[in-house]
Parts: sequence; structure tokens; C-alpha cells
Amino acid sequence: MKLLADRMKNLGSENAFKVGDDIRICEQMGMKVIRFNLGEPDFNSADHINKTAIDHILKGNSHYCPPAGIESLRKAIARQVSETRHIDVDPECVVVTTGAKPPISYSLMTYVNPGEEVVYPSPGFPIYESWITYIGAKPVPLHLEEKKGFSFSADDLKKLINRKTKLIFINSPSNPTGGVLSKAELSSIAAVIREKCNPNVRIYSDEVYEHIIFDGLGHHSIASQPEMKEKTILVSGHSKSFAMTGWRLGYAILPSRDEAAIFKNLNINNISCTPPFIQEAGREAIENPCSNNVISKMTAEFETRRNYVVKALNSIDGLTCAMPKGAFYVFPNISGVCENLGVLDAYRKLPKKVAEKTSESTLFQKFLLYRYGVATMDRRSFGKIGSKGKHFIRISTATSLELLQKGIAKIEEAARDQKGFTAFMRKAEHLYL
Amino acid sequence: MKLLADRMKNLGSENAFKVGDDIRICEQMGMKVIRFNLGEPDFNSADHINKTAIDHILKGNSHYCPPAGIESLRKAIARQVSETRHIDVDPECVVVTTGAKPPISYSLMTYVNPGEEVVYPSPGFPIYESWITYIGAKPVPLHLEEKKGFSFSADDLKKLINRKTKLIFINSPSNPTGGVLSKAELSSIAAVIREKCNPNVRIYSDEVYEHIIFDGLGHHSIASQPEMKEKTILVSGHSKSFAMTGWRLGYAILPSRDEAAIFKNLNINNISCTPPFIQEAGREAIENPCSNNVISKMTAEFETRRNYVVKALNSIDGLTCAMPKGAFYVFPNISGVCENLGVLDAYRKLPKKVAEKTSESTLFQKFLLYRYGVATMDRRSFGKIGSKGKHFIRISTATSLELLQKGIAKIEEAARDQKGFTAFMRKAEHLYL
Repeated sequence: MKLLADRMKNLGSENAFKVGDDIRICEQMGMKVIRFNLGEPDFNSADHINKTAIDHILKGNSHYCPPAGIESLRKAIARQVSETRHIDVDPECVVVTTGAKPPISYSLMTYVNPGEEVVYPSPGFPIYESWITYIGAKPVPLHLEEKKGFSFSADDLKKLINRKTKLIFINSPSNPTGGVLSKAELSSIAAVIREKCNPNVRIYSDEVYEHIIFDGLGHHSIASQPEMKEKTILVSGHSKSFAMTGWRLGYAILPSRDEAAIFKNLNINNISCTPPFIQEAGREAIENPCSNNVISKMTAEFETRRNYVVKALNSIDGLTCAMPKGAFYVFPNISGVCENLGVLDAYRKLPKKVAEKTSESTLFQKFLLYRYGVATMDRRSFGKIGSKGKHFIRISTATSLELLQKGIAKIEEAARDQKGFTAFMRKAEHLYL
Repeated sequence: MKLLADRMKNLGSENAFKVGDDIRICEQMGMKVIRFNLGEPDFNSADHINKTAIDHILKGNSHYCPPAGIESLRKAIARQVSETRHIDVDPECVVVTTGAKPPISYSLMTYVNPGEEVVYPSPGFPIYESWITYIGAKPVPLHLEEKKGFSFSADDLKKLINRKTKLIFINSPSNPTGGVLSKAELSSIAAVIREKCNPNVRIYSDEVYEHIIFDGLGHHSIASQPEMKEKTILVSGHSKSFAMTGWRLGYAILPSRDEAAIFKNLNINNISCTPPFIQEAGREAIENPCSNNVISKMTAEFETRRNYVVKALNSIDGLTCAMPKGAFYVFPNISGVCENLGVLDAYRKLPKKVAEKTSESTLFQKFLLYRYGVATMDRRSFGKIGSKGKHFIRISTATSLELLQKGIAKIEEAARDQKGFTAFMRKAEHLYL
């Protein structure tokens, strides 16, 4: 009798949380670490949001509440999404969740049998791939290529759809690339889906970065396309838009009340409900016009930083960085740096068993952290399957301009430090994995 | 291609949340409903707890935090459990969760392969059976018999253990029966486990009612027994002890750091983390001595109510009620009432398809709600398997003494209203299920 169930070997993780352990080690050695690894705004939730939560705590609104979410929040969400996506959202199809992660596992559990295929963006949010493999489905990565601006065409998607396809993940604006799908692109993607997919195929539209879009572009949803609302699980949340990461508040809008009832039951089985005072704060965030200012200021700041960071990174020898259109990440190509530093050679020399669990960009990412005190994320952290030979890191711009300048100066230094890298590889065998 | 995955038909639910829909229908018809269905203290969280959460919200402690839980809370939990269970708990083995439900699914996912057997109390918390069947394990109910005071002997358990047994749920004090296992009983249960179980079998000890125990009895944990800490997932939480149901805060203490790392990763995949200001409030609840008073007062009130309720129920013709030793429920036997009202006959006459989805106690429970405005829970809501022919309802004492008096008067009336029940069955076909 083994201790662990077989299925557990198929569950992945999100390294953005695990890299915290590496950072702690560095800090215990006395290093000061610049955190470019974080996927959260460096702003606090606004006063009107905090005040609402506090009022409700004080009045004792801290008991169990409806598992699908309180009615006032579901109505606020339905209204906001109806207006911005130009569709008619039924509040009874909205299910409130503790952040925007639960809908990922809920969707795979609800819709996908083992052996069925699930299409998802790669690089993409790692929890997609983690749950796809866990549930026993076949992961079908839709590779986002740098040369296409990390976007994909309807044709790219078309090639991946077959009669086993059951669920398709779309994420715009995208984590980690900052890519944004235009209305025209979504229109042709929807046409492919209408043409090739069985009516029981579901589209998971992850729109958590909906408010963080630059260059005057707008956010568009696949759900706004003809016949798409009926197939789409539209997911968003408060973490990124309202700087409420730690509050853990998100939601899914299901294609039907029956499907919403299943998500509600998954809430009953998992968490009972989301804290009512947090839901009230989330309602206030959506309804209070003060939030518009907060979002605009935050997004403007992210845009300023992006402009600086992309330019600064592109001036580093061996590094190229595409210009993201949304979210608060940049995703530079570090192929040249890996070549210059001897990372590619070092990786080739690793024992096969070690090599399988790491990558070139991982080696550089660890070097950057342990030798230069800059925490970033490697390419492998955003979907392992098919990531071989792709050399990128993710840098979050959710840090002050001052720290961005400091950190990028360090990256520049590291990118030239061949000796340092060689020494790091000699001494740091325990850090490979 | 079907819309839903096959596994979903195996997921159960917790009717305590679903009965809310029935109550809403009654209220829309103009009825005033007395809620004896609730599994939560009718007290608010204490001022020192609220204040801590508020302070942390105001200082911006509302960002992502460590997925296994903040260190200060994990240490407070480890200290409290070490002291009360007389064992040495490593804070690194503690994983904080959003309430005490996540450890149920986490344990089944982590330890149990399809086809392996899981022993669990019946009547018991319904989410055990729900996840056991969902995961494809074989559910092995350990029936708690009224004539044994809803307890079970080591011998009862012994008969159910075989080489396929992988996980055993224990819940003391028990929901829904209020049964409490003594130190001596736990000692012989532990002996059976040591004798019959492979070292990789795990014991899930649900201790969420640890503070609500009457008659001067103490709480004892299976983890305190020799060689048991190494096999036990000790689960508790803040909902019941500190009247913090809506805060969603609980924890699991794992047998090893490796197993804790798996639960941490399940948090990463599901929720990222529990809100940091809620964790701080939970730490305060454990550390601040003011909580002791709050718990004592609440428990004394539950004991007073229990004494009243058990006596009052036993004076109703056709109803017998055992004396619970803990928690805030009573679990009366309504066999005589079912007989007197003609419920047994009415059930026998139902079409087979309808009968399969309901039970005698369900019919009485619905009659009580829709005709007398008293919401209770039926036996079937606490484990369906093997519940046939067992006629009980659960009444929560988490309601004021005044409402308890009113509600029990109504139950007494209902228990005599044969005509009313006949009329109800004629008119209410849509309510059977």
C-alpha cells in the first residue's frame, strides 16, 4: 500500500508562490531581494472598499451566506459584465468564488472526462496545465509565439480542435505575455469555434486582467461574439482590477443556470461560501464610481513602467523584449543572454534526470536570484509541455519605478557575468531543481 | 459528446445549504420560518477578533500571503494543539485552509485511489460521503446506533477494516448526533488501528466542535494516542469555537512536512491563500485570553438549551431524543411520529423513482417546514448510504431559547396533525424530492 494516490503525480503548481521559498533562503543569507516575481499590484485596496468590509464586520455580517454568492454582489457583477460585454447576464448564472482560481478546477471537474482534450495557451497561467493533467485530460498547448506578438490566429486554434476537444482556455489580456486579443481576432476565433466545435464544448475565458490594458485599447470578450455566451464560462475577479489579491474574490458566469448550480454545489463541497463582508467589499468595488479613478491611476502607472521597462530591457545585450498591450508583465526573450553566459552549454552537460526537471531559463532565473538578488519567473513556470528550447523570463512591473530601475541594472550586470555564472553552476548543485 | 463529465454524478452535497432554497419559497409565500437547520452559532465573532481584522485591513495587509498560512497563525495553532492534545506539533506540518472543508477533499485526493475503501461515520457530516464517492473510493459507513448513544466501539470499527482500507474518518464531538468519544474509547480505537492498519493508512480526525462539550467532559483526540500522531490528519477550525463561520478559517495538521507540502500545493492550485487579515484575526482568537470567556459563555448557553430541548422533545408523543454530550445539535428519533402521521404508509405508496430520492424523515421534514414553518434537517442529509428505514431529524440549538420553545411547540402540533400531513402529501407533489 502506497501512501499517496497515483493522481497526485499529475498535479502541477504555480511557481510564483514556490519561488517565495528561494527568496527566503536568499534573505536568510543576508541578501536583499528585488521582487519581480509577483503577480499582484503594488497598490493597496482603496479606502471605500476597506470601509465597506469593516462596516460589515462591525455589524456582525460574518456568518454563513449563500454558497453561490450574496445576491447584491451577483447582481452587481451581472450588471457590470452586461454593460461592458454588451450581453445580457443573468445574476442566477453568476457564482462567486474565493479568487479566480476555483473556476479552473471546477470547469475541468464539471466538463472534462479523462482522455478528452483541453486546449490552453502556453505560455499561460500554470494552473490551467496543472488541473488539465491532474484530471486525466490530454493537454493541448496553443503555443503563443513571440514573432506573432504572443498572439494566436484563428487558424492556429483550428488546427488543434478535433472531435475530442472538450474545453478551450482563452486568456486576454494574457499572463505572462501581456498579449491582448482584438475584437477582430476574437471574431475569427469565435467563427472557428462555431464551425468546428460540438455545442457541448465549453470556452473558458479568463478575463482577470480586463481593466489593465494600454495604448487606449479596449477589453473584448469572446462571450460578446454571436452564439458564444451560450458556450462561455466567463471568469474574472477583484484581485488585479481593484488591487484586492489577498481578499480572494472572483467569479464565474456560467452559460446556464443548471451549470451555475453545479458550480454552486462545488462551492458547498469545498468552502461553503466566500466571507460575506468580503463579498460586500467586492460589491462596493464594482458599484462605487470612486473605483474608476483608482483603476485609471493604477493602469496609467503600469503603462509608464511598461514603457520604461521594455526600452531598458531591449538595451541589454542578448535580450529582446516585446511590447505588451495589457496586464503588468513583460516577457523578454533571453536566448542571447543564455548563449553569451554559457547557460545553453551548462544545461547540455546536466545529467538527464536533472535536466528533465529544469531548463535553460530556469538556470538563468536562479542565477539572477541567488547571485544578483532579483526574483523573476522562468518560462517553464507558465506551462511545462512544449517549453523545451524556449528561453524567456517573466518580469512583473508591479514594483515601483525606482526598484525596476535598480533591478534591471542588476539584470544587465548579470547578463554579462559569464564568470559569475560558471562559478554559480559549480557551487550551486542543490539549486538546479 | 455529453456536456457533463461522468464523475459529477458521484458528487453529493450538504443540504444545510440547499434547504435555504426551500426556506426562501416558504418566505415568499408569506410564512415566518424558524431555523433549526443552521450549523452555526447564533453569536457574533468577538470584538477582539473583529478589531484585529480591521486593523490589518486598514494597514493594507490584504495582499497575497504564504499559501500554507502565515507563520504566526501556524505557530499559534501548533502551540494550542500541542498543549491541549499533549503532543508536539511542528508548525511546518500545519496548513491553513478556508474553513475546515478543504482538508476533506484534499485528503481524499492525496491519499485515496479509486477502489480503495474509506470508513466514515453515518450519520455524519455529509461532505465526507460526497467526496468519497466523487473520488471513486468505496464508501464504508460506520453506523452510529441510537441504542449505543450514537457512539461506536473499537469492535464496530474493527469489522470494517480490511487490506483495502486507506482512510478512516473520526468526528468527535459529532455532527449531527452530538456524540463524544471518551479517552478510553479512543484508546481502544487506536489499538485496533495499530493492529489492523497498514502504516500508510491515514486517520482523519475532525475536531471542529472541540470546544463545545458539556457535563464537564473534556475533548480528546485520537492523535494523542500512542503512534497515532504519525497517522492522523487533525482538522479543526474557527467556525464553531469562535463563532466565525462566515470568516472561513480552518486548518489541517499533517503527519509529516512532506504531506503538508502537498496540502500547501493544493491550496496553491485552488485558492492561492487564505486572506491574511482573516488569518490575523484567527491568530488573535487563539492567542487572546478573552476568547476563553466567550467560549465558556457560548458553551454554557448551548448546554442550557440542550437540557431544555431534549426534555421538551421527549415529551412529544412518538419522539425520543438521546442526550448529546457536545456540539449544538440534537438528533431525535421520529419513528413513532412517522408511524402516527402515516408517513411510513405515504412513503410506501410513492412511485419507486420518487422514493429513491427521498425518505420517510424527508417527508416529515418537508411537512414541518412547509406547513409549520420549522426548518430542520432529515437523516438522509447526513449520509445517504444505509440510511434507509432510519427515521431521524437534526435540530440545531444554535437559536435562542425563546425560538426553541416556539419551534418545539410547533413540532408537537405537527406530530399530531395526521389530517394536515395527508393534505400536505396530496397537494405537494413537487416538494417530494
